[in-house]
Amino acid sequence: MREFFKVVSLEQARAHALGLPLVATETVPLARAAGRVLARDLVCEQDLPGFRRSTVDGFAVQAASTFGASEGAPALLDVVGEVVMGRAATTPAGPGRAVRIPTGGMVPEGADAIVMIEHTEALDDLTIEVGRAMAPGDNLIAADEDAAAGQVVLTTGQRVRPQEAGLLAAIGQVEVEVFRRPVVAILSTGDEVVPPESPPGPGQVRDVNATTLSALVEQAGCVALPLGIVADDFDALLSACRQGFEQADTLLISGGSSVGTRDHTLDVLRALPDAELLVHGVAIKPGKPTLLARSGPKAVWGLPGHVASAMVVFRVLVEPFLHHIAGLSTPSDPYGHRVAARLSRNVASVQGRTDFVRVSLHQEGDTLWAVPVLGRSGLLRTMVGAHGLICVDRDTEGLDQNAPVDVLLF
Amino acid sequence: MREFFKVVSLEQARAHALGLPLVATETVPLARAAGRVLARDLVCEQDLPGFRRSTVDGFAVQAASTFGASEGAPALLDVVGEVVMGRAATTPAGPGRAVRIPTGGMVPEGADAIVMIEHTEALDDLTIEVGRAMAPGDNLIAADEDAAAGQVVLTTGQRVRPQEAGLLAAIGQVEVEVFRRPVVAILSTGDEVVPPESPPGPGQVRDVNATTLSALVEQAGCVALPLGIVADDFDALLSACRQGFEQADTLLISGGSSVGTRDHTLDVLRALPDAELLVHGVAIKPGKPTLLARSGPKAVWGLPGHVASAMVVFRVLVEPFLHHIAGLSTPSDPYGHRVAARLSRNVASVQGRTDFVRVSLHQEGDTLWAVPVLGRSGLLRTMVGAHGLICVDRDTEGLDQNAPVDVLLF
Repeated sequence: MREFFKVVSLEQARAHALGLPLVATETVPLARAAGRVLARDLVCEQDLPGFRRSTVDGFAVQAASTFGASEGAPALLDVVGEVVMGRAATTPAGPGRAVRIPTGGMVPEGADAIVMIEHTEALDDLTIEVGRAMAPGDNLIAADEDAAAGQVVLTTGQRVRPQEAGLLAAIGQVEVEVFRRPVVAILSTGDEVVPPESPPGPGQVRDVNATTLSALVEQAGCVALPLGIVADDFDALLSACRQGFEQADTLLISGGSSVGTRDHTLDVLRALPDAELLVHGVAIKPGKPTLLARSGPKAVWGLPGHVASAMVVFRVLVEPFLHHIAGLSTPSDPYGHRVAARLSRNVASVQGRTDFVRVSLHQEGDTLWAVPVLGRSGLLRTMVGAHGLICVDRDTEGLDQNAPVDVLLF
Repeated sequence: MREFFKVVSLEQARAHALGLPLVATETVPLARAAGRVLARDLVCEQDLPGFRRSTVDGFAVQAASTFGASEGAPALLDVVGEVVMGRAATTPAGPGRAVRIPTGGMVPEGADAIVMIEHTEALDDLTIEVGRAMAPGDNLIAADEDAAAGQVVLTTGQRVRPQEAGLLAAIGQVEVEVFRRPVVAILSTGDEVVPPESPPGPGQVRDVNATTLSALVEQAGCVALPLGIVADDFDALLSACRQGFEQADTLLISGGSSVGTRDHTLDVLRALPDAELLVHGVAIKPGKPTLLARSGPKAVWGLPGHVASAMVVFRVLVEPFLHHIAGLSTPSDPYGHRVAARLSRNVASVQGRTDFVRVSLHQEGDTLWAVPVLGRSGLLRTMVGAHGLICVDRDTEGLDQNAPVDVLLF
């Protein structure tokens, strides 16, 4: 039985994980770009929108023709034409001349402002009164107001949100170079584990980790490849790992909470081609028996067997790693997935170790309380009943009731 | 030209939207259940884990056999057998008898506590010393500690997160009854609009809304069905709507920012079979010219043509509606997608109208500032540059600098 003697801090474990290389890139059609990570900077080739557009229904005019106008003393303008939606504006405006224009229409030459139709009165088909003075630029947007030709509008490493997808459409980027979605193979170990479809016999339990981890992997924007249950046997696990690496960028091995099983995993990680053991235990709770090795450029994680512990390790270590290899240059959601709350009761901790405590959230008047969820780390219900995690730093001995906490949401 | 005379409040518009019926249900395999909404309560048929399990590597004992034991005066126990992982525990424990057991192993009859291996010393293969007194229940979980037979563990209307998916696996629910993902057809209108792949001619712009709305629809857990661009023509739009309803649960019509186009949309909504116009203008900014009608049990939304306005309306009205018809009984993420910040400068508003202001977030020391993003609502860059929205209530005349604000994240 080998213990985890070389336990590293959470930050050291993260640094190891973030040293691994990114996945390759691929080109996808615009319709599939949302949610993906850009693999190159994007330049707007032409001004956007590309022509001066009216933001109201009304008349394109020279502002100077309305200077001094008021409801009592309106300016009189000749209606000399009409802009048709989606066509070039053919009739120019000019001193004393107005051109009818719809919202979104192309502002004609000679016009520098649009009068809203509500501020005009038609004397006849060819003459309008304008009851207020316009300033140049009123009610129109410039040809390059959304973006100017040559401008970098989106950058490598950015996640494409709906609005970024819209911008790609606006600049005509119908094919987009993005990072591949990392493929993550998931192996369950443990002689006590049976697939969910099998009624467990005496001493057996259904495999929960493969389903949970697959869902977490997909939620992180990656492709989950569950490879089933592997017997607690060196050769079986080694061969499953080799097979996993043929199809996947990263491997997660979970289950098998006994020290014997963990030792097995460790031996297999060491036996992989071009292997290097990077992390052998992390000073976090839960999650201490976490392993990270690389085989060539690819990572393999050994996760705790208890599903709740595996989820915590996923959230605080594996997910940042997956975002990294997926090309994200900044956290995908630096402000989301977190909420500020107050701790409902004292939480004790041990110095030198980072503790993650499951909490449920309860609003009471103006206060959002983070209430620690009790129960051992092996229990699913502690996760089903939790909204998120709070972190108790390794430099503290715990948190007091009422302390402000930052809840990392599940 | 018809104006929006019957403008309703945001709350009234929401109430109309939430009166529409839910989509049907379907059965999906467990591997596809994550992210879906449960369509029935789920009962755990058997105790979970179903047998008493050890949480450590050690020896199963009767706690009473260790009462009074200490490092100086250890209890002496006979090792009478070993629990094999994933098998029934065949050798019972009893007074003075210990059974070797791995983490996760089945606790044998007669044992009520597990001594960690670290707290024992092997005198020989058949005898151990236990250096501390155990209490009944130490280091084991009860057969029903995660869930008891007959217990409702998940309820209708709940979104399946990774941990809920794990629980479904644990109770052997390999097929799951969920609500169908609502199919949302998206129609773009406007004679000035060309598809993203077409270089726009004079006075034309690329269709941004279809791409943006599709991404928003998918992000809300629904299926986007973009049906392309429809000419500003009553018959064309009516026929496109009828066709959309053959394939979709809900229709979004966007684009066409001129009053003429909006009137068209209104006429078409009224001409749909079994039509009822529910909302004709909402007292929000941006987003006033929002339309909601139903045709039979299905909804059709007329969204503002400006993409930034359409996004705001989507976030505050369409998304809650989609979550509702998708069967979600509570907001899918009541605490997520929001963050508390302080407003960087005064924001003026008008009483009687709910204003939504785009903000970017900037951390400065301990303060997270919400900085209003300037620019007209037609501009994409105002959305690309924003992290979220703040809401200025209709009963206020604005918000002061430094005011605490709740940012609804994009």
